[in-house]
Amino acid sequence: MSDSVSEMALDQLFREARTFNAWSPQEVTDEQLHQLYALAKFGPTSANASPMRVVFVKSEEAKARLAPHLSDGNRAKTMEAPVTAIIGTDHEFYERLPQLFPHADARSWFVGNQPLIDTTAFRNASLQGAYVLMAARALGLDCGPMSGFDQAGVDAAFFAGTAVKSNFLIAIGYGDGSRNLFPRSPRLSFDEACRIA
Amino acid sequence: MSDSVSEMALDQLFREARTFNAWSPQEVTDEQLHQLYALAKFGPTSANASPMRVVFVKSEEAKARLAPHLSDGNRAKTMEAPVTAIIGTDHEFYERLPQLFPHADARSWFVGNQPLIDTTAFRNASLQGAYVLMAARALGLDCGPMSGFDQAGVDAAFFAGTAVKSNFLIAIGYGDGSRNLFPRSPRLSFDEACRIA
Repeated sequence: MSDSVSEMALDQLFREARTFNAWSPQEVTDEQLHQLYALAKFGPTSANASPMRVVFVKSEEAKARLAPHLSDGNRAKTMEAPVTAIIGTDHEFYERLPQLFPHADARSWFVGNQPLIDTTAFRNASLQGAYVLMAARALGLDCGPMSGFDQAGVDAAFFAGTAVKSNFLIAIGYGDGSRNLFPRSPRLSFDEACRIA
Repeated sequence: MSDSVSEMALDQLFREARTFNAWSPQEVTDEQLHQLYALAKFGPTSANASPMRVVFVKSEEAKARLAPHLSDGNRAKTMEAPVTAIIGTDHEFYERLPQLFPHADARSWFVGNQPLIDTTAFRNASLQGAYVLMAARALGLDCGPMSGFDQAGVDAAFFAGTAVKSNFLIAIGYGDGSRNLFPRSPRLSFDEACRIA
């Protein structure tokens, strides 16, 4: 049982965090990306299956490979971001279960049941993408998540020969709030989205 | 640009947080559930579409409606939890876009494209479920996420007559670490899950 984190942390993680569309040139170091994953990996997944695979697109060469597959509205800002994480979904995640869930034969729960494999992979890789986003914010980084891209093109460019499919993208860096930061859009009220039964 | 949140907050959110399977009887108040949603709602979604719908199962009556649809391994612990959130996915989320994304006709991007609707709904409701989990932890609550349940049964019991489908469950309360708390399972290393390109 814990207390709430500080009001400042709640602001940083949720209330004041924004989706940025312009980026300061300040670098994100490889060490920061390792720190980010060292937090995000602890987020829970079904049977600890951990189906997320990530490519952190950072070099000019890798950015050039990503660029043609981005929607027109996402291209310029993504090239400006110091790093863009391609959050991928491994549809053969179950091959890792003997390592990740060693106390039961969890692999056998999935093999041969493709709908269960695909649903579990997509749900849990999406959860893990959210953990990456929250971990980045916790470390003081800003994010710009995007799903406007050609999935097949990104898969061919970054995941060829694997069972990994791109899920969504997260630009990561230090947001420049002076450019293209839109007013926050409205959210659904509690009563519009939730009920207590 | 922000600093990292405190080491204690990083522990609470990621490094020391655990999936609990036993619960203290301490209540989770309706006010806490409102606080939780008031944080989680700010997490980003595609076109701000916010497709998550939540039923917080709290009353004995609602728990009794949920129980028959849980997998055998999840039933007793879920009945013990003070609250279980049914994270639902609204497959007609696009009808809210005139409210949620008022600066463009985003509804028209989806209507008639069922694969895009379903993928966007499932990905983004899953992201929002992760935001609920992280918001609960940020507020000092513990979580026990689960996907072992009969989706059609839960849908009929809680979402009849709507386009909402159950996605996954999160038991919420104050974990009892003295019972059924398993050693933390291993995670994939950075090099197993990620690469910097």
